[in-house]
Amino acid sequence: MKRIGIIGGTGYTGAELLRILSVHPGARVTMVTSRERDGAAVSDVFPSLRGILDLRFIDPADADFTSCAAVFCAAPHGVAMTHARKVLDSGAVFLDLSADFRLRDAGQWQSWYGMPHTCPELLEEAVYGLPEVNRAQLRNARLVALPGCYPTAVQLGFLPLLKEGMAEPRGLIADAKSGVSGAGRRAEAEYNLCEAAESFKAYALGGHRHLPEIVQGLREAAGTEVELLFVPHLAPMIRGIHATLYAKLRADAPDDLQKIYEDSYRDEPFVDVMPAGACPDTRTVRGSNMCRIAVHRPGDGGTAVILAVEDNLVKGAAGQAVQAMNLVLGMDETAGLQSPAMTP
Amino acid sequence: MKRIGIIGGTGYTGAELLRILSVHPGARVTMVTSRERDGAAVSDVFPSLRGILDLRFIDPADADFTSCAAVFCAAPHGVAMTHARKVLDSGAVFLDLSADFRLRDAGQWQSWYGMPHTCPELLEEAVYGLPEVNRAQLRNARLVALPGCYPTAVQLGFLPLLKEGMAEPRGLIADAKSGVSGAGRRAEAEYNLCEAAESFKAYALGGHRHLPEIVQGLREAAGTEVELLFVPHLAPMIRGIHATLYAKLRADAPDDLQKIYEDSYRDEPFVDVMPAGACPDTRTVRGSNMCRIAVHRPGDGGTAVILAVEDNLVKGAAGQAVQAMNLVLGMDETAGLQSPAMTP
Amino acid sequence: MKRIGIIGGTGYTGAELLRILSVHPGARVTMVTSRERDGAAVSDVFPSLRGILDLRFIDPADADFTSCAAVFCAAPHGVAMTHARKVLDSGAVFLDLSADFRLRDAGQWQSWYGMPHTCPELLEEAVYGLPEVNRAQLRNARLVALPGCYPTAVQLGFLPLLKEGMAEPRGLIADAKSGVSGAGRRAEAEYNLCEAAESFKAYALGGHRHLPEIVQGLREAAGTEVELLFVPHLAPMIRGIHATLYAKLRADAPDDLQKIYEDSYRDEPFVDVMPAGACPDTRTVRGSNMCRIAVHRPGDGGTAVILAVEDNLVKGAAGQAVQAMNLVLGMDETAGLQSPAMTP
Amino acid sequence: MKRIGIIGGTGYTGAELLRILSVHPGARVTMVTSRERDGAAVSDVFPSLRGILDLRFIDPADADFTSCAAVFCAAPHGVAMTHARKVLDSGAVFLDLSADFRLRDAGQWQSWYGMPHTCPELLEEAVYGLPEVNRAQLRNARLVALPGCYPTAVQLGFLPLLKEGMAEPRGLIADAKSGVSGAGRRAEAEYNLCEAAESFKAYALGGHRHLPEIVQGLREAAGTEVELLFVPHLAPMIRGIHATLYAKLRADAPDDLQKIYEDSYRDEPFVDVMPAGACPDTRTVRGSNMCRIAVHRPGDGGTAVILAVEDNLVKGAAGQAVQAMNLVLGMDETAGLQSPAMTP
Repeated sequence: MKRIGIIGGTGYTGAELLRILSVHPGARVTMVTSRERDGAAVSDVFPSLRGILDLRFIDPADADFTSCAAVFCAAPHGVAMTHARKVLDSGAVFLDLSADFRLRDAGQWQSWYGMPHTCPELLEEAVYGLPEVNRAQLRNARLVALPGCYPTAVQLGFLPLLKEGMAEPRGLIADAKSGVSGAGRRAEAEYNLCEAAESFKAYALGGHRHLPEIVQGLREAAGTEVELLFVPHLAPMIRGIHATLYAKLRADAPDDLQKIYEDSYRDEPFVDVMPAGACPDTRTVRGSNMCRIAVHRPGDGGTAVILAVEDNLVKGAAGQAVQAMNLVLGMDETAGLQSPAMTP
Repeated sequence: MKRIGIIGGTGYTGAELLRILSVHPGARVTMVTSRERDGAAVSDVFPSLRGILDLRFIDPADADFTSCAAVFCAAPHGVAMTHARKVLDSGAVFLDLSADFRLRDAGQWQSWYGMPHTCPELLEEAVYGLPEVNRAQLRNARLVALPGCYPTAVQLGFLPLLKEGMAEPRGLIADAKSGVSGAGRRAEAEYNLCEAAESFKAYALGGHRHLPEIVQGLREAAGTEVELLFVPHLAPMIRGIHATLYAKLRADAPDDLQKIYEDSYRDEPFVDVMPAGACPDTRTVRGSNMCRIAVHRPGDGGTAVILAVEDNLVKGAAGQAVQAMNLVLGMDETAGLQSPAMTP
Repeated sequence: MKRIGIIGGTGYTGAELLRILSVHPGARVTMVTSRERDGAAVSDVFPSLRGILDLRFIDPADADFTSCAAVFCAAPHGVAMTHARKVLDSGAVFLDLSADFRLRDAGQWQSWYGMPHTCPELLEEAVYGLPEVNRAQLRNARLVALPGCYPTAVQLGFLPLLKEGMAEPRGLIADAKSGVSGAGRRAEAEYNLCEAAESFKAYALGGHRHLPEIVQGLREAAGTEVELLFVPHLAPMIRGIHATLYAKLRADAPDDLQKIYEDSYRDEPFVDVMPAGACPDTRTVRGSNMCRIAVHRPGDGGTAVILAVEDNLVKGAAGQAVQAMNLVLGMDETAGLQSPAMTP
Repeated sequence: MKRIGIIGGTGYTGAELLRILSVHPGARVTMVTSRERDGAAVSDVFPSLRGILDLRFIDPADADFTSCAAVFCAAPHGVAMTHARKVLDSGAVFLDLSADFRLRDAGQWQSWYGMPHTCPELLEEAVYGLPEVNRAQLRNARLVALPGCYPTAVQLGFLPLLKEGMAEPRGLIADAKSGVSGAGRRAEAEYNLCEAAESFKAYALGGHRHLPEIVQGLREAAGTEVELLFVPHLAPMIRGIHATLYAKLRADAPDDLQKIYEDSYRDEPFVDVMPAGACPDTRTVRGSNMCRIAVHRPGDGGTAVILAVEDNLVKGAAGQAVQAMNLVLGMDETAGLQSPAMTP
């Protein structure tokens, strides 16, 4: 059993890592850090783990990662970059679920996150943890930058079109809807059930931090500049992202987009292309690592409408992180990730 | 007090008419029909009306509308057209909340609704009940075709742009999200709480019946053909529509879209243009007749993103119907509609 | 129009007072205080009031209540008692929605609320604002202590049994369930939608502050000591209280409890006794000032099971406060409170 | 791998069996029947199983169970008794999740279910599938009657008190709350999200079919007649049961109930006694096979209040069925059931 550490284990992605890894056949969490809950039993913070995980949070300053094969960072942005060097020096693989290593350009990172990057020299080494794009590199990675939740769904939805040069790279629109857990474990009235339930709203039209990450990925796939309008929305549910993607098709785009998508993802264990005409519900991926995608071409057929759903905490965060860990540590890519969604 | 009849009062729009009219200062419901619940007390079907409305459902075949000043039809499509002539002949105004009189073209109606229209001769007389567009005509109407729930939000959101010729009439996108009550009072597993809660999905990409209605309205406003992609979604909440609208701006569009919208709706009692930069929550209109609209111009500013929210059962149905009734019967347009939204 | 002030208007009960009073035919809110939001437009804090209420929050220290006929206090406990004297001296009636004047015994108040009472001399004057019990006194009150949300439902449910001496005053059980808004406008992870939705739990078994208030009321009705087990629960919804009440019947209790309840509440505008055998849903009172009660006698009939539902923010708080205000100011008791529940 | 059959696989318990068994290390579903969906791919009915289960529904009349080690019946009551003999004759173990074999008395069964029992001779052989009570018998069972969802939580909560003779066997109260999935996959307006969300109600006070089952189990534990008031409620969530149990303690009951419960369940893999003073949330068992129990003694201590939570579809149905199957087939009791709850 590989020994695993988690930095910042009191948020929702930390909790989800603990849930997934608790039944992983080849890995075992042996260390979880938290500055705020230092000394507390993990199962006191997450009673769902009573009887399952017998660990206490330790202060990250006290953490010795030398026994760990891999260390996840599930802390807010700005934290991972203070730990990365130490973790790597201890010999462990570092898998960061925050934004610290997602953007290749330290200047761009600073402008979006409002602080200087403290280890820009590691950015080049970081492998962007989207297995559907970087599987080979992940097998040899030391430092993995896991994608954000929106970027996973939006990229998986757009990539086949852009890689094949079938869509105009300008005028892309991603109208995305997320459950409330995407905002993290917030103690704010805005996310109180009384204000977030039975309501729906858009937000961050002035610029969401996932935008540059998505654009970076799409640009690489397209091999050219892309222009994307990204409008995130908050939906009154706990989990789930539904990305509705619009792309103007080139005049010479083939008729059968369905086949293009099926071919693109045929061998992917965690991307499911729905039958032609279907629309995926987010509940069909709740708790699972699957991303389901449907391809439509409504009206006169000039615009492709791609629907992509995922569980933001699984394929959009902790599940994808475990998928990447499996690749990095040479285990079966699907280990610990085979449970179907919980429905109803 | 004007006497009011309701045909088909056992669904959600019927219930909402009863709720709103129960505190209307100038109107009183004196007759409600239902074929299925003929003879039952209205307050047995809707216990929320116990002590408030002391009426029994009658069979529509037994209904005599001569004492009514206005008759609403809240039945599914195909029913209103069988009653319209009789109601009008009895001297009452007929306000139809179904789709029967929304499309001017009987052939188009037949192709979308799968049955022939039985009184096409009335289509020309029908006034489309969007007061922000047809206030003057409504004051003199006998037959009012109330807009659908999506069409209300989408049209109110797009109209200022299109009327002023600021947006390209092609390439319009309406990515719309509705609460479950928009589907009506359905006894189907798909809308069971277990399947509709904690989930989100798109539907009807092959063509939603509200599409031709919206296009008809936008075309009239634009004075030219328009091309619209309409993608409706089901959101896990009871009430509320959030329309996210995308329109490519013409090169000569003015910079200050905010002012255009504020000017367009300055005198409207039930359209609220949000301050620049704001995003409206559907909960701020829950139970109220208000439609709140925000205008954004993200990224390079080439595309306008309009956010429009309404309560699908109020401004999207029963509230708008009462607003139209007020106009037709010469009452204060806002009578019975002044309650603010219920938040939380 | 009577001029009305509100102290502490940024919470949910404050918002609900503003919602209800905005359509009250005889009263108008002219002053709302908030220490935290001093200077902000009320409609910026509650966008649902945009276009409906054009007021700014003022600092309570700056408030001059002399123009007000009545002043509500919707602040947390401990605040009202610092304002009561000043409000009364200004000539306004003081209606306190917090706990400050609910208990007659200052010592008991201190032991439950952990601070000394600063104006115990006013406790005797305070009228407990349950109109079904104290209607006559309310008509002449200057200082009204509005009941808590749980105490309203639990007392209205138990009172007929206890007043008539039909139930054993010992062994009473109130198993009560509340929506999340009962906890107030909290910025705590516990009430985040992700943690409060799709979950259910009991809390405060060690002693809830509403317990002494309920016992005080039941004891007065019974004319003897009562013993009550009160177990509150948090239900995954915004509004609503459902109290399930258990009382062992005395051997000589009459068979027809239904009639006893109907007789008790026959003339009450805001208590609705359901037909025999029915079970009230909280949604049938959502947004309304009604309390619906059902009386059951399951099994061998030795125990009465009373079901009482209310909207915790309306009959359990702001609506009942307005009902009391109507009585104090000599207006129609139902003014502003006649809207039926919002269903669906 | 043991081959497993499921009769009636289109409901929620069927879906949950498929979810759990899809990752079971020693069992594989090889046959699923459905009369209505005969011929359809299971993953078309449950898209969450796309890529995970490649089976089609077959007509139960065509089912040959000889290759199966165990057959579950997840159909409504009245169906299992028509299949039991055939399944047993084919050599498979029969695990019935419906009510058909829960009551030992065929006459009592008929009076509660309104039809004669068609194989009363099997009732005696049936082992009631609550492993915490009947573990030894389950190891040798051929026919298992799985407990209902409410009965599991209510019995696990009451049993230690009753077995030890610490509570009065009369005057027991079970105030139970269930998520909507407890009603099954219903196509009824009552369970439409619009009517079941944001609401709470009691039901079946006239007598719920789980009552005789609970009483039968409690009576056996107590060794004497018991008297139980059982009041079920519908809570606005998908999954979860919260039973709040009240029992009057005998004068000689020991002070330390906590220890009694901890001792009772110390070796149970799926019963978790919470620390003294804690209250379990249903979300801490969502999707897991755990039942969490807390013991309180509020007020004067004369009455024990036991809180028991479970996921009605797991420990209350499919999970417990798999636990029983593991015992019957001689596998590790916890196989396939070790995943922690999904939180948030």
